[in-house]
Amino acid sequence: MLYGVIMAGGSGTRFWPQSRITKPKQLLKIAGDRTMIRATIDRVMPEISCERIMIVTGVAHADEIRAEIPELGENMVVSEPRGRNTAPCIALAAYRIAKEDPDAVMVALPADHLIGREDEFRRLLRIAAEIASKSDYLITFGIVPDRAETGYGYIELGPEALKMGDTSVFKVKAFVEKPDKSRAETYLHSGNYLWNGGMFIWKVSAIIQAFEKYCPSVSRTIKAIAQDLNTPRERDAIRKAYECIESISIDYAIMEKASNVLVLPIDVGWNDVGSWASLHDVWDKDHNRNAVKGAFLALDAAGCVVSSPHKLTTLIGVEDLVVVDTPDALLVCRKDRAQDVKELQEALKEIGYDKLL
Amino acid sequence: MLYGVIMAGGSGTRFWPQSRITKPKQLLKIAGDRTMIRATIDRVMPEISCERIMIVTGVAHADEIRAEIPELGENMVVSEPRGRNTAPCIALAAYRIAKEDPDAVMVALPADHLIGREDEFRRLLRIAAEIASKSDYLITFGIVPDRAETGYGYIELGPEALKMGDTSVFKVKAFVEKPDKSRAETYLHSGNYLWNGGMFIWKVSAIIQAFEKYCPSVSRTIKAIAQDLNTPRERDAIRKAYECIESISIDYAIMEKASNVLVLPIDVGWNDVGSWASLHDVWDKDHNRNAVKGAFLALDAAGCVVSSPHKLTTLIGVEDLVVVDTPDALLVCRKDRAQDVKELQEALKEIGYDKLL
Repeated sequence: MLYGVIMAGGSGTRFWPQSRITKPKQLLKIAGDRTMIRATIDRVMPEISCERIMIVTGVAHADEIRAEIPELGENMVVSEPRGRNTAPCIALAAYRIAKEDPDAVMVALPADHLIGREDEFRRLLRIAAEIASKSDYLITFGIVPDRAETGYGYIELGPEALKMGDTSVFKVKAFVEKPDKSRAETYLHSGNYLWNGGMFIWKVSAIIQAFEKYCPSVSRTIKAIAQDLNTPRERDAIRKAYECIESISIDYAIMEKASNVLVLPIDVGWNDVGSWASLHDVWDKDHNRNAVKGAFLALDAAGCVVSSPHKLTTLIGVEDLVVVDTPDALLVCRKDRAQDVKELQEALKEIGYDKLL
Repeated sequence: MLYGVIMAGGSGTRFWPQSRITKPKQLLKIAGDRTMIRATIDRVMPEISCERIMIVTGVAHADEIRAEIPELGENMVVSEPRGRNTAPCIALAAYRIAKEDPDAVMVALPADHLIGREDEFRRLLRIAAEIASKSDYLITFGIVPDRAETGYGYIELGPEALKMGDTSVFKVKAFVEKPDKSRAETYLHSGNYLWNGGMFIWKVSAIIQAFEKYCPSVSRTIKAIAQDLNTPRERDAIRKAYECIESISIDYAIMEKASNVLVLPIDVGWNDVGSWASLHDVWDKDHNRNAVKGAFLALDAAGCVVSSPHKLTTLIGVEDLVVVDTPDALLVCRKDRAQDVKELQEALKEIGYDKLL
């Protein structure tokens, strides 16, 4: 059977002041009229029955996520006492699912990405699930790039491994770190590189094998509590395991080391919605390329992203700004500096404004 | 005796969204911890007893001004049913004062200007009042310019007319319209031009004479209701008079025509606080030249004016912006476009957002 694992551990600092410690990106309606996690669940529900969808999230957000996705069984929202990157999260999910169904296939997806063409996504999900169910391949989705982005890791295609109808699946030649601009240009034009979007499909038995081989420390830690998973003892067991579990990404822990990795190119209108600036590509824009949520009036303003649901926002003579208004904090930021919202939060901590984080 | 006439008819549209139709600039604490009208009254009180200070304002603001300046007699806040520029306002005040004291000297001052050096201002006020009391001169204060400002009218100095101690008073050669930049530069460097700040001192009998001679229409209209001024019939009388009274400035009506005009140069830290941008010169600034009212945190922001008393405002990578937050409207504006706030209000009217005006 196919299981879904939604990785909802993000703290969402990049959407401050709308996102807060208590309200990370996956719980914001930032890209549409649903929260990002709601959209993520809705996207996979046609393929995966809700009793086989698990959400792994931070302990601080578990209750709100349960309320947001009430159709999930309470035991299907698993909380991590602290963020330890993707490898522990995936290992935890894999061992937990394996207890119920050792032959299960699992797809692991971030809770806070956007996908424009959902039918196509589900078609490719079905293909990947079929391959995974009949093999021990570790399959990752590789996103067909449409620009020379320096903010993502890339996957270099190896030779075609197999073909399902018209859809080719490739061996992975290499996982590549975030490139500089000229390398990114080269990658884009070569046609041999895809973005690493952090979406994976495999049999739980295959990923458990890989953990045992390539990341034995995480494997041991989770295996040691496997008998407690999905029992009343789970919470305490996870808390104990996470006290010392290695914080490591699934890419470092497994994907870059394993030899049985395949990549399925997907071109589905993916957007990781990584900052306020990214919403300029997501939201509708007026004739001056202003992307606005809220009442708005401008004289000679262009290319701005405005989120101000509670009042009229007016702009005069400004370009490429991000303006975000909330009841207790206002942000005005050059669009190309939107990543520095993180730095701002460090500064907030320093001056003791923790209540706004 | 010396009477003060405070002209408080301004609608203060240039400080939107903080200023509103119901809350013009003179009623805002925009340049300090007092409203501008409070500061104006406090400035002249050492020279003019409060029972001889009259405020002329729009009917919509009279009650709030009475509450703001409670020491004035209720009859000393005179309301105009509509703005008709400065000449009717001054004629009304002059005829009203003349009823009580035909030999009175009156000083007419805008309610919403800032004066940094108040002692010096009062010293010059005393000099002007003394000259006025002994002559029929119409005296205007001319502000010594410190920059080539294109936003003000200028007064060209004529020959010295008289001297009081070290203080020279000059004949006026000409009132000059707002110049272009190169003319403004010439004016500044010549030393022969002063800014026209709209502050006047004269005997009420002298200005009434001048009205009769140079602006008989306004004179006739006010004279016709003179018997009703400062009586229970005043309000109705003014309402009727203002139905058809000519809307004209005192400069056009009198000053540019009269031959008995003197100008007293004053250098008193004057600022007309004409727009949000002007507050950059008035407020304290941080080491990046940001002038801020409210909690504030910035990364690489410089030269901004921020008014946001209700929440934390954060800026990243922006320069020379005006940011004004209010509970129902937010303005983000390039500082050199601050005058266009007026245009914004026209646009607001057009789209039916009158409630925010």
